[in-house]
Amino acid sequence: MANDNLIAPSILSADFARLGEEVKHVLSAGADIVHFDVMDNHYVPNLTIGPLVCKALRDHGITAPIDVHLMVKPVDRIIPDFAEAGASYITFHPEASEHVDRSLQLIRSLGCKAGLVFNPATPLSYLDYVMDKVDMILLMSVNPGFGGQAFIPTTLDKLRAARARIDESGLPIRLEIDGGVKVDNIREIKAAGADTFVAGSAIFGAGRAEDANRYDSVIAAMRDELSKAG
Amino acid sequence: MANDNLIAPSILSADFARLGEEVKHVLSAGADIVHFDVMDNHYVPNLTIGPLVCKALRDHGITAPIDVHLMVKPVDRIIPDFAEAGASYITFHPEASEHVDRSLQLIRSLGCKAGLVFNPATPLSYLDYVMDKVDMILLMSVNPGFGGQAFIPTTLDKLRAARARIDESGLPIRLEIDGGVKVDNIREIKAAGADTFVAGSAIFGAGRAEDANRYDSVIAAMRDELSKAG
Amino acid sequence: MANDNLIAPSILSADFARLGEEVKHVLSAGADIVHFDVMDNHYVPNLTIGPLVCKALRDHGITAPIDVHLMVKPVDRIIPDFAEAGASYITFHPEASEHVDRSLQLIRSLGCKAGLVFNPATPLSYLDYVMDKVDMILLMSVNPGFGGQAFIPTTLDKLRAARARIDESGLPIRLEIDGGVKVDNIREIKAAGADTFVAGSAIFGAGRAEDANRYDSVIAAMRDELSKAG
Amino acid sequence: MANDNLIAPSILSADFARLGEEVKHVLSAGADIVHFDVMDNHYVPNLTIGPLVCKALRDHGITAPIDVHLMVKPVDRIIPDFAEAGASYITFHPEASEHVDRSLQLIRSLGCKAGLVFNPATPLSYLDYVMDKVDMILLMSVNPGFGGQAFIPTTLDKLRAARARIDESGLPIRLEIDGGVKVDNIREIKAAGADTFVAGSAIFGAGRAEDANRYDSVIAAMRDELSKAG
Amino acid sequence: MANDNLIAPSILSADFARLGEEVKHVLSAGADIVHFDVMDNHYVPNLTIGPLVCKALRDHGITAPIDVHLMVKPVDRIIPDFAEAGASYITFHPEASEHVDRSLQLIRSLGCKAGLVFNPATPLSYLDYVMDKVDMILLMSVNPGFGGQAFIPTTLDKLRAARARIDESGLPIRLEIDGGVKVDNIREIKAAGADTFVAGSAIFGAGRAEDANRYDSVIAAMRDELSKAG
Amino acid sequence: MANDNLIAPSILSADFARLGEEVKHVLSAGADIVHFDVMDNHYVPNLTIGPLVCKALRDHGITAPIDVHLMVKPVDRIIPDFAEAGASYITFHPEASEHVDRSLQLIRSLGCKAGLVFNPATPLSYLDYVMDKVDMILLMSVNPGFGGQAFIPTTLDKLRAARARIDESGLPIRLEIDGGVKVDNIREIKAAGADTFVAGSAIFGAGRAEDANRYDSVIAAMRDELSKAG
Repeated sequence: MANDNLIAPSILSADFARLGEEVKHVLSAGADIVHFDVMDNHYVPNLTIGPLVCKALRDHGITAPIDVHLMVKPVDRIIPDFAEAGASYITFHPEASEHVDRSLQLIRSLGCKAGLVFNPATPLSYLDYVMDKVDMILLMSVNPGFGGQAFIPTTLDKLRAARARIDESGLPIRLEIDGGVKVDNIREIKAAGADTFVAGSAIFGAGRAEDANRYDSVIAAMRDELSKAG
Repeated sequence: MANDNLIAPSILSADFARLGEEVKHVLSAGADIVHFDVMDNHYVPNLTIGPLVCKALRDHGITAPIDVHLMVKPVDRIIPDFAEAGASYITFHPEASEHVDRSLQLIRSLGCKAGLVFNPATPLSYLDYVMDKVDMILLMSVNPGFGGQAFIPTTLDKLRAARARIDESGLPIRLEIDGGVKVDNIREIKAAGADTFVAGSAIFGAGRAEDANRYDSVIAAMRDELSKAG
Repeated sequence: MANDNLIAPSILSADFARLGEEVKHVLSAGADIVHFDVMDNHYVPNLTIGPLVCKALRDHGITAPIDVHLMVKPVDRIIPDFAEAGASYITFHPEASEHVDRSLQLIRSLGCKAGLVFNPATPLSYLDYVMDKVDMILLMSVNPGFGGQAFIPTTLDKLRAARARIDESGLPIRLEIDGGVKVDNIREIKAAGADTFVAGSAIFGAGRAEDANRYDSVIAAMRDELSKAG
Repeated sequence: MANDNLIAPSILSADFARLGEEVKHVLSAGADIVHFDVMDNHYVPNLTIGPLVCKALRDHGITAPIDVHLMVKPVDRIIPDFAEAGASYITFHPEASEHVDRSLQLIRSLGCKAGLVFNPATPLSYLDYVMDKVDMILLMSVNPGFGGQAFIPTTLDKLRAARARIDESGLPIRLEIDGGVKVDNIREIKAAGADTFVAGSAIFGAGRAEDANRYDSVIAAMRDELSKAG
Repeated sequence: MANDNLIAPSILSADFARLGEEVKHVLSAGADIVHFDVMDNHYVPNLTIGPLVCKALRDHGITAPIDVHLMVKPVDRIIPDFAEAGASYITFHPEASEHVDRSLQLIRSLGCKAGLVFNPATPLSYLDYVMDKVDMILLMSVNPGFGGQAFIPTTLDKLRAARARIDESGLPIRLEIDGGVKVDNIREIKAAGADTFVAGSAIFGAGRAEDANRYDSVIAAMRDELSKAG
Repeated sequence: MANDNLIAPSILSADFARLGEEVKHVLSAGADIVHFDVMDNHYVPNLTIGPLVCKALRDHGITAPIDVHLMVKPVDRIIPDFAEAGASYITFHPEASEHVDRSLQLIRSLGCKAGLVFNPATPLSYLDYVMDKVDMILLMSVNPGFGGQAFIPTTLDKLRAARARIDESGLPIRLEIDGGVKVDNIREIKAAGADTFVAGSAIFGAGRAEDANRYDSVIAAMRDELSKAG
């Protein structure tokens, strides 16, 4: 999977009343991984969904990777809950843990892949001494915890800087982008170095029908753009 | 509704992958209100579901009262989110707000009914000067944030004390109980003064079939016990 | 002073651009003590004025008692600052100190009078074991940190309960009321047991002229009402 | 042990450079239990000793009960550490736990005896619904976290109130007192209802000699006073 | 204004009893902007003045820019209060906001200019991805929250580094310095890159007379030094 | 002392029941300084020992430098306690103080040497503007607060980077390493730039006999390795 471009629908934009079905549809429409946004009303001013919902997806037969983005502070207590609930990736903000190296080790020790998330203004220096302990770097291109924001353009420079660090490390670290990703800009974002693309309203926002195929066209258009990026 | 005994299934025990359907089934099986447990990983060591899930139920056509129990601290910032998401009741723990009277007023000013929740060890003195501002008193008969606990017997005395306060006030305040309520003990609990009964695994725990009628027998058995309590 | 009814203008409603003059005017108009509201943007959602402003009043020649109401949490670090700045009374909320007895002792050890403040919903049981260490009990009849609220009627019962505790103690403890006090209701409030009356907009709100006598009529009307209370 | 008067030397006043020897001496001089004061620099402004020191005493052959008083906030995370380190009693302040009932249950579930500690100003209402879950009630007669304070006289009334609650419960709950206990006042304190007496500088303060018998006279004098209390 | 050297008197050193007059005097003596230090007793161990005081200055007819330096944590809730109270600039410490980019956007969305403040030890890497969102960079040359400190010499290097970042960006960002600025060192500070100079006791400290012209000589001397810096 | 290689036994691994004796033995066995780990159950999930234990060592006649590593947050309140208790060095984590420069100045103003500690993932950029205020840089090669971890290999690169900063500064700053240091790897660690070596279980773990010479062989072996590093 490490060389592909992955499309990661954020289920925050899905219909929570029939979430299992929504996730199945979006995966059958071509999505690669399930992006799962966890907010605790402390690190961000919103509260979303926790481990029980993650476990319900697994119990519903979802086998695709689930990519849990923790917008919570602190992080250590809830990490084992998500590992047990079936998370594949667990990523967190370095400012949200007193002991970043330990939190990363904790995630891996539970059999999950670990990652760090960078707010738009957070410098990349948090990566200086942990490249060997991250499987994913997630750059936020909007401020987390709010909907309806546009992609922050300076993130493109930040993607290039992160890509250079990954290439220099020689390690198979995914570079994920979250916020304002659309068919219109996904090619440019890929060109700057991203290989994993979170999209919420861009995918789920086209209306909520019962048709399992309704997400196809958006995902196909994204893949088409990605293929053009070379 | 104020004189009835209300059965309030806690959706924490439902199947989150198809929550809309679950809630419809349990309501059609005779439940009166939807109990909605919100945990923030700070006030209690768990994180569950937030306003988006509440709104999804409303969008799914659920019209029954939704009874939101906030196990979060602080409470004021998230109260408007739940009011907007369609909550009917919003209850919180007095220890979780610096300004209990203001939080109660805030809930009512947004068109919701307001309530206070008492942990097993919390004294009732927090009610001394706010009886005119509460629509519901919720007594926890287990410690919130954990599953699988048994009903704490001293809660019966506390129910009697709370019932006496309500009767003395002459106000139409509901007295709700949450934790370890089952067919076996619901009659005794009603006799101690409760009129609203939260039940989670007792209702949802009997297995998850597609049959819309599967919750009927448990709820019917509870109603039968309640009717015997006189 | 202990047997008099004291009028305590809250300087939050004064003109901060010429505070020294304002305070002199209101005192010459018959006010007894200066009520000084300190908010820290943590215990209440507002930030007002600190020790430097208190000291400036002393340096400006104000010799009347200054009655500092701390709406801050925690309280111990800032208490010596206010003592040094010339505070006469320092009162705080019992929920805002881990060690209420120690904070009260600290205030007295610095030569100030000490008091506890009760939010509208806070029970009086915090007084059970500290009556010998308080010089003032302040009951909030609105929620602190907000302007423009009306007097909460249940405070009258609470005043009577606090008055009974004071009378039983036989100690010269002042009973202060803050929130929505006006010429219209001050007589009733005194009848319920209060002897110290904070008023903000009721006194300062009549417009800000240069006339030193402009506050006379309101204060005179209040005194007139108080004298009728018997 | 439940009917005896217990003398509990606080090891905060012992010589930490040879703590094992100190504890052995004071026990051989007639002390009954070891009082172990844990401060975390958050709940009180001091930091003392943790589980490793408790374990070292057990490894040193101390078999007397160790009575751990947690002046920490929050309490749940460290409770298992002390249980594993050999604590016999673990007591905590109700204000220091969001979930008092749960913390008490946690202590007992680990095989220790559980207790609540009351600061001088803390009302006893926290006991209303947990009498069946406490093995010890500790009343502070000074403010915790500071040395050299005198016994607060109003604690005698509080002892009587706590004794009445214990007698009414019919349960074998110890009533411990901590702060300013000396040969001079121990008789009066016992008469007010205490049965377990913490003493720090009163016992250890007489100088630190190598003589194992040096603590004998103080403890003997205390026992003599206790016997006179009838 | 962007190319000038601005002198910004810190009103913390003014006479709070007649603040409106003080500010008018110092502006008529040649000061450019009003520096307004907000402390909350949490981020720094002091509490000063809040939005009400800012608004009073505007109501008093002050039209010069008001430059609000928030020494508070967190920052988002109070930002709208200051915008409404008439602030021109609002600056905050990056460590004091979980979401720096969002806080900067919030300030601008309310019509104010936004800035970041750097404590003496804080690295400049917080600027890496937000240069397009700041109108001012404020370097502290003393530790905030305390008076009477001397200018920290290593700040000169930091000024040069910040100046290089600004010049490289090509953006009209002001570079402000606060702490220990005096007639003696202002020329050297300007040479290192600063263009906005906060001075408190250096300006207000010469005694408080009624003479409106008393601040003239200090400000004139500063301007003289600045002109020599070339 | 500045040019020597110092061996610093961490007393967390010593026998706390007879700590004075343990420290004397390890010093007579050739150790240079006493490493004193302070944990507060907040910054790290453990609570160890505080100022009283430090003072007991001084009272016991220990005159070697005591190197206090604060794993507490915040740090300013407890710094004077340790200075008074006889600490020689006081080091803290930059993330644990809002005002790093001020905390460093505070330590020095009390006559102690000051230092910063870096968690494994913490970037060195915190050193950018405080090199003139640190006497020691401590790099953690394990995550603090836990026992039994292995040396993190990327710390060698970090040591080289820190050594380069020290050499460039020309200042006599010690470079200390803590975590997983053993006879096996101490030579390599020195080669990377460290000059002060904390060792806990490596020294104390060989069993606890009464023989004062038991620590000799480990320390001698370490010195032998250090001498080979050239």
